Amino acid sequence: MQSSLSFLSVAKPLSVSSPVRIKCSLFTAPSTTDPNSMAASGPKWAQKTITLPPQRRGCHLITPKIMKEIGQDLSGFNCGLAHLFLQHTSASLTINENYDSDVRTDTETFLNRIVPEGASAPWRHTLEGPDDMPAHIKSSMFGCQLSIPITNGKLNMGTWQGIWLCEHRDEPTARKVVVTLNGI
Amino acid sequence: MQSSLSFLSVAKPLSVSSPVRIKCSLFTAPSTTDPNSMAASGPKWAQKTITLPPQRRGCHLITPKIMKEIGQDLSGFNCGLAHLFLQHTSASLTINENYDSDVRTDTETFLNRIVPEGASAPWRHTLEGPDDMPAHIKSSMFGCQLSIPITNGKLNMGTWQGIWLCEHRDEPTARKVVVTLNGI
Amino acid sequence: MQSSLSFLSVAKPLSVSSPVRIKCSLFTAPSTTDPNSMAASGPKWAQKTITLPPQRRGCHLITPKIMKEIGQDLSGFNCGLAHLFLQHTSASLTINENYDSDVRTDTETFLNRIVPEGASAPWRHTLEGPDDMPAHIKSSMFGCQLSIPITNGKLNMGTWQGIWLCEHRDEPTARKVVVTLNGI
Repeated sequence: MQSSLSFLSVAKPLSVSSPVRIKCSLFTAPSTTDPNSMAASGPKWAQKTITLPPQRRGCHLITPKIMKEIGQDLSGFNCGLAHLFLQHTSASLTINENYDSDVRTDTETFLNRIVPEGASAPWRHTLEGPDDMPAHIKSSMFGCQLSIPITNGKLNMGTWQGIWLCEHRDEPTARKVVVTLNGI
Repeated sequence: MQSSLSFLSVAKPLSVSSPVRIKCSLFTAPSTTDPNSMAASGPKWAQKTITLPPQRRGCHLITPKIMKEIGQDLSGFNCGLAHLFLQHTSASLTINENYDSDVRTDTETFLNRIVPEGASAPWRHTLEGPDDMPAHIKSSMFGCQLSIPITNGKLNMGTWQGIWLCEHRDEPTARKVVVTLNGI
Repeated sequence: MQSSLSFLSVAKPLSVSSPVRIKCSLFTAPSTTDPNSMAASGPKWAQKTITLPPQRRGCHLITPKIMKEIGQDLSGFNCGLAHLFLQHTSASLTINENYDSDVRTDTETFLNRIVPEGASAPWRHTLEGPDDMPAHIKSSMFGCQLSIPITNGKLNMGTWQGIWLCEHRDEPTARKVVVTLNGI
């Protein structure tokens, strides 16, 4: 383990022309300083803020919206991670079934059953409306951020997985997602 | 904050004095092998273990404590991710409202309603006290780790977002968070 | 998609022979282009899809299975992050107690209490069996992905933390986890 007050950090250049797959072990790059290959294959960072249009309270499949915004950029990564960060506290991001919309309806039903709202609710935070405090709780239950592996220029999700935006407020508002891509 | 339709991206080694934004495509650095510019602008990793002082059972806003520990280091990143990892199984990390403390009180109320504790609880794991098994469940409900985008040297959270430590045990203990910064 | 037993990874040149720890500030590498030292310590990406054997409904400690697959590769990282991504929507990944198996049993008890199943359940999505919709909900409650810090070649989890696979379906099936390692 590391000591409790130390920082470890390193900056570095790159020297390989393309990634290589080998079984269960790490590839060590041949030594070269060709600047062209560097520029072509170096570790890349990309970051973008996507604004999603207002959507009604409930769970929504947003994979197509996200892919429309980042699909072209993903193609530049052979291996990496895509991070999605929702900049709000009354909505959430989760990964779940991408096929039957009943799954999204039932998930919204569950959330509304589990988190009391209105007269029966014990909340102190009520100034922003009866749906606001339940929205905050649901946001922490499902979370506001996701990391998804990138493999060969695509999000490497399972066949039935999709990205959901869960809107927990009654009043639809635009939602911002900061997407950060990192990889090679 | 960054504009809503721009991409920030860099391939390494880097040879410009500041990052460049171009719309929806990856920036490729001009080719140079000037080691100074490389060292100055290459991908960086930083890791630190932060010890948070004991806090009473409930939800606590810890953004200021975290920023005090990593704020200076964040300033060295134009684009990246900050990862926070709580090394415990009876507390949690989540992102939620940073303004009205009632939201934190209500969230604690919710957690205590949803997870049975004491005589009415069906738990087999009781040796560590009646609050221990509920604490483990709450820890998995909210999670013990977060990734937050870094943009222009700052955590790129929404206006109302803050980092919460949720302490689920009755007996306050110090909690350790491993912070890992990665970016350019 | 990638094959289930292959690793994709690249090492980048580094201008120092080994990382350096300094208190609360970022280390800038001295300028040198010695390719040997570079190849030895550059930033690396590794990615692998692990297939976990079918397991009964409930929570299972899978740290040993994961370490058997990636332990050797982890040893090549001084500092970084390990990302685990479960490619399914009816199971989940979480970090919790690694010692007393009663904690896993009690967590399964909680999940079954909190998510209605069978005759009493309000679900519309029932074609895949009474346990399917509850499984989807549990998957979003606990999540399908985790990032864990890597420090000195090991997963830097707390003493009592372990990685759990929570199987939410009655019918055991093999589960795939995409593991992505990134660091120096």
